[in-house]
Amino acid sequence: MDKEQLLSLLQPEIEQINQAMAAEFATIKSARLAEVVDHGIFNGGKRIRPLLTVLIARLVAFTRMPEGIADEEELSPPPDLYHLAMVFEFLHGASLLHDDVIDHADTRRGKKTANQVWDASTAILAGDYLHTRAMTLAGLVGGERCLALIGEATSAMIDAEFLQAQNVADTNLSEENYFAVLRGKTGALIGAACEVGACFAGADKEQRAAIRTFGDALGLAFQVVDDLLDYLGDEDSTGKAIGNDFAEGKMTLPLIYAIKEGPADKGKILTDLLAGQAPERQARIREVTTIIDEAGGFSYARQGADTLIAAALEALEAFKDCETKDTLQALAHYVLSRNK
Amino acid sequence: MDKEQLLSLLQPEIEQINQAMAAEFATIKSARLAEVVDHGIFNGGKRIRPLLTVLIARLVAFTRMPEGIADEEELSPPPDLYHLAMVFEFLHGASLLHDDVIDHADTRRGKKTANQVWDASTAILAGDYLHTRAMTLAGLVGGERCLALIGEATSAMIDAEFLQAQNVADTNLSEENYFAVLRGKTGALIGAACEVGACFAGADKEQRAAIRTFGDALGLAFQVVDDLLDYLGDEDSTGKAIGNDFAEGKMTLPLIYAIKEGPADKGKILTDLLAGQAPERQARIREVTTIIDEAGGFSYARQGADTLIAAALEALEAFKDCETKDTLQALAHYVLSRNK
Repeated sequence: MDKEQLLSLLQPEIEQINQAMAAEFATIKSARLAEVVDHGIFNGGKRIRPLLTVLIARLVAFTRMPEGIADEEELSPPPDLYHLAMVFEFLHGASLLHDDVIDHADTRRGKKTANQVWDASTAILAGDYLHTRAMTLAGLVGGERCLALIGEATSAMIDAEFLQAQNVADTNLSEENYFAVLRGKTGALIGAACEVGACFAGADKEQRAAIRTFGDALGLAFQVVDDLLDYLGDEDSTGKAIGNDFAEGKMTLPLIYAIKEGPADKGKILTDLLAGQAPERQARIREVTTIIDEAGGFSYARQGADTLIAAALEALEAFKDCETKDTLQALAHYVLSRNK
Repeated sequence: MDKEQLLSLLQPEIEQINQAMAAEFATIKSARLAEVVDHGIFNGGKRIRPLLTVLIARLVAFTRMPEGIADEEELSPPPDLYHLAMVFEFLHGASLLHDDVIDHADTRRGKKTANQVWDASTAILAGDYLHTRAMTLAGLVGGERCLALIGEATSAMIDAEFLQAQNVADTNLSEENYFAVLRGKTGALIGAACEVGACFAGADKEQRAAIRTFGDALGLAFQVVDDLLDYLGDEDSTGKAIGNDFAEGKMTLPLIYAIKEGPADKGKILTDLLAGQAPERQARIREVTTIIDEAGGFSYARQGADTLIAAALEALEAFKDCETKDTLQALAHYVLSRNK
């Protein structure tokens, strides 16, 4: 399945998710607030998290059907599923709104950020609104188990932000520590999006464990690719300047590997830059990219992402073959090949 | 019951609430995050919201006991109640952390704000953490009905912030509109703290309605008194500079009344100042306070608060007489007489 086929298969699901979100926004009293959350959410996002919830719920439901029923088409998901799925887009949107305030970011995906269009206060409050609605819907639609999963993931995300801040420019950072931050930052929410879908469809213990493995591995791979794109991405596609992570002193996998495994003289250039000032790091980003590349940092990270996706795909083997499974496999491959 | 007696009666409950919060903070992994939320929560707050949850739950439980059991002492609240009650302190703390970032506030209750001790990012994330934990605990301890009440109150708070921003320096603002903002900003959370306590103790429909009336009226009175203290408070007690609201162009009840009902020439001074710049408003705060006072704005607002408290006390008549009821009555009187 190529990328175009995948996107056209996903389009109807994305429409349903967008409709559920638009209906929810219609309940907001303040016109300004409605405008801001709309800007924060309908900004070209790929809806990966809610799609995972929907697809996993379908896969689990199909696998749990009695043997006689072989046609997956007979299984139309309850409308509630889209309301539960959108919780993950709300949480993601809330964290982007706050992240952009924290990073003083001007643009995201080529569009002005909410803190630029309006101001920081507006973006903070709109993020709080999405957060509150997300948690409320999580509990009311998904029940206590879903709320607990989502609550854990969200608090892990924040704990990981603090851990990451603590790791800035720590040139001795271990891979283990790097993955601990990733697991909290992105992995936790992607993992929860998958597990909540499984819970909602009545997964048994083994099925939940398989889905957790799938979600964790996919979430980590997603973030490793993000860290690669930060160095190697096309600025027009990603809508972000390259080299941001290095400028901020963020210790990501390609950099950690290059310092630890590359030639010592080149490693010293990197550690000296990390001990220095951000503008100097920004100015020398091309040289840095070459050093990391020659030390094998990018191919190492790429291999790491490949291994994670292989683990994710293996976990799916516990489920019946069907179109939804094909789609999830294609989505996992897409995570590896995406360019934005 | 005087203030000292009230506080000594409440102290053991406050201890239990503080213990529940400290136990919750012990689960945080990042030492920095733990430090920040501790700073945000253990900052001399009066714990009014969680106390209301606990006291209302006791009052309802006592009222619902069979006639034979007359001794309220036999009724010890389940430990869960304190975990549910602390949700309101978390939500309050989260909103203060974010408000201080939004207002660029340096101090609160005479102590440096988190955005001053650390930075805005840290305060935003710590607020998000409290918010997430609050919503999760609300659902897991209180169940769906409590989560729904708390979710509604929190989103109403944010909607009201936007409404308030829209009303700044609107010299034609109606009292109705003023109360709509209050209802969202403070009333909603205080009302929810009361109603959640009632739900938790198994209140029937009439009892819930009575508690809702009590909570709404108390919450509004609390905020009217806050608005009075902003003009008339003692800076040493409140820990806040007086005249902030007027400097920011916030249309509160004393000001609305003075413009509408006071002499036209004095009203023009106020509206001209509101159309002008903040530093000018700040510089002339003594003159403004005299104008509002002579127009009867403060006594009008004070009467409004008295009427609200009378309505709150009347709503309590639906419940059995007991020590908890005395305490709630004293707490309602305290709201009127507080000076910080």
